[in-house]
Amino acid sequence: MSDQLSRGFPVDEFEVRHNRASKYMYEAGLDGLLVTSEQHFRYFSGFDSQFWASPTRPWFLVIPRDKPIVAVIPEIGKIGMEKTWIKDIRTWPAPVPEDDGITLLSDTIKELGSPNLSIGTELGHEMVLRMPILDFEKLSKLLLPIKIGDATTVLKKLRAIKSEREIQKISHICSLVSDAFEVLPEKVKKGLTEREICKIFCSEMLFRGADSAPYVLGVSGPGGYDNIIMGPSDRRPQKGDILIIDTGATFDGYFCDFDRNFSFGPPSNKIMQAYRLVYEATEEGIRAARPGNKASDLWRAMAAVLEAGGANVDPFGRMGHGLGMQLTEWPSNKIDDDTILAPGMVMTIEPGIEFEPNRLMVHEENLLITADGYQMLSRRALPEITVIE
Amino acid sequence: MSDQLSRGFPVDEFEVRHNRASKYMYEAGLDGLLVTSEQHFRYFSGFDSQFWASPTRPWFLVIPRDKPIVAVIPEIGKIGMEKTWIKDIRTWPAPVPEDDGITLLSDTIKELGSPNLSIGTELGHEMVLRMPILDFEKLSKLLLPIKIGDATTVLKKLRAIKSEREIQKISHICSLVSDAFEVLPEKVKKGLTEREICKIFCSEMLFRGADSAPYVLGVSGPGGYDNIIMGPSDRRPQKGDILIIDTGATFDGYFCDFDRNFSFGPPSNKIMQAYRLVYEATEEGIRAARPGNKASDLWRAMAAVLEAGGANVDPFGRMGHGLGMQLTEWPSNKIDDDTILAPGMVMTIEPGIEFEPNRLMVHEENLLITADGYQMLSRRALPEITVIE
Repeated sequence: MSDQLSRGFPVDEFEVRHNRASKYMYEAGLDGLLVTSEQHFRYFSGFDSQFWASPTRPWFLVIPRDKPIVAVIPEIGKIGMEKTWIKDIRTWPAPVPEDDGITLLSDTIKELGSPNLSIGTELGHEMVLRMPILDFEKLSKLLLPIKIGDATTVLKKLRAIKSEREIQKISHICSLVSDAFEVLPEKVKKGLTEREICKIFCSEMLFRGADSAPYVLGVSGPGGYDNIIMGPSDRRPQKGDILIIDTGATFDGYFCDFDRNFSFGPPSNKIMQAYRLVYEATEEGIRAARPGNKASDLWRAMAAVLEAGGANVDPFGRMGHGLGMQLTEWPSNKIDDDTILAPGMVMTIEPGIEFEPNRLMVHEENLLITADGYQMLSRRALPEITVIE
Repeated sequence: MSDQLSRGFPVDEFEVRHNRASKYMYEAGLDGLLVTSEQHFRYFSGFDSQFWASPTRPWFLVIPRDKPIVAVIPEIGKIGMEKTWIKDIRTWPAPVPEDDGITLLSDTIKELGSPNLSIGTELGHEMVLRMPILDFEKLSKLLLPIKIGDATTVLKKLRAIKSEREIQKISHICSLVSDAFEVLPEKVKKGLTEREICKIFCSEMLFRGADSAPYVLGVSGPGGYDNIIMGPSDRRPQKGDILIIDTGATFDGYFCDFDRNFSFGPPSNKIMQAYRLVYEATEEGIRAARPGNKASDLWRAMAAVLEAGGANVDPFGRMGHGLGMQLTEWPSNKIDDDTILAPGMVMTIEPGIEFEPNRLMVHEENLLITADGYQMLSRRALPEITVIE
């Protein structure tokens, strides 16, 4: 149980975030941001609580372009909020369904000054507006003539580039989960269910320093698994089965997201070939990871290997994505996502094939885009599938 | 690792849910529902996946009043969805930011027939509309003259009353977490951090049969804790400290939510008194739990004891809430929530006081409202605080 890294961030980290946000707001013609989701709330305030698991109360941060950030939050969060760098904290005794912070929030935004303000919030793709929509409509009316528009571009630009300190946290969780994957074969006794194996793996990650493991997926099947999002179940992998474990564990609010494949008993030739092909596609995806290349270039690099190997590549599929405070972030490694890779971006490289009807092989690694290429964050999977005897 | 209960639900459970929903839709003047959130998606379809941890793709269920339910989902979910009772499954290759299922969803709703339809969705208090708001606005326009309104009342009425099978699952997780709390003092060695204690407790719950523990909160402090939503931290509780552990663990998608208090070394008289007072308030809250009483009656029963004991009771506070597929559900045990308790409702009883400045004592239990009173789901805490030597 060692947590070598310090937790949280010093104030200057938040100041830099606010400054960068202000710059992007200016470019987008916005005077401020309103954020409501756990990740954005934490990103700007440092407020870190598991209490988001309770969907009852909304939480708001108002982020003016040129003034200090204001927290408009349920009373129950006051003491925790006072431990952050945010000095202006306004509370109401939530839950109050008839006015759950809306008047207080509206007054706070109006205080910013001009009635011609334009405020951006979480309205677009991959954004979650974590408040009742009826309350959002009420707020929009109360604020008039102040306008509420979309801040998706601002928020995506901001979070896509990770700071050194953010990268350290992602690197830490990737490293300890790599360790946990390496010892897993020794811990998996015959006859366990997928669910039991996932619990052993979850415990292993926790005691090696992960804070939580919100995503511990295990799926197995004879000669391969047929999906990568259902499970674990009470199925007991047998000789001849392939098991994939895919995990999103966190350290201090930052995720890893990678998987490993296991063969129960010696793998068939088909499995070895499928594994090798996807392994090689991963290699090419990794090699394409450098600043100036696009997310679509990662896709193309992987797709070329898979197609040369005889696989049908879904032209609409995605083979990886951004990673950070969420298990999946932007951009998407898709044929049509032309986001340019830049130093500080953390990406997953995730090729997959259907090598027989309803039999999939998916690999996934995590890396950082650096000034001149990439740096692996997960420890590379072995070139041959790991066998559990 | 024993999971005695069967997982999932037979088809007739979903038929009953759909029938009840149809009745409430009729009463609310709605012709159908559109649901987007994990809980409602699972409630109506049985589709159970950890993949909701990825916020990239929206998922939709269209629930007509008089026709079978239709799933409109990302292609990646097709195989999993086919394992549910839903027969009409329509997919698109998400993520496609420019049209992430919106045209397909709009066409699906229009197929229901009349252009005068009124569809309800998750717009109100404690609801989450899990899709980009810009896409929701696009959908609303595409659907015209079909109207999209609020279905909060329908959804709350539906889910507030749990079925026998749902109750079994909640009862199971409450029971095994009660066991885990009982053995915890033996497992907590001196010198551990809050975080380490929470991990031990988390593992204990997992290996006793919990599927996940999304909420494992631990907060300690000398002579008491100052909040119940921050933590665990790397603080090491010392002699004279009080530690609260509050947990929301799940079995098959259903939560428990209760806490226990621990004293490191013998408790002071003040702590013993505070514990005793909150214990007695819990007793009264439990005694008030019967059909016909209101959520506000639970509050009043607890508040009366606390006030008689000399505590300042916050008239805006809440002392418990509904419980089920979410850590916190409706109603709220508040002075102004006059929801009438009915058999099948699962409630938390959660009184708390500030017995010294910034020193809290909070207890929590889970119970079921039955035909003639209540049935405990969590095993009642001891009348004296548990001491860790």
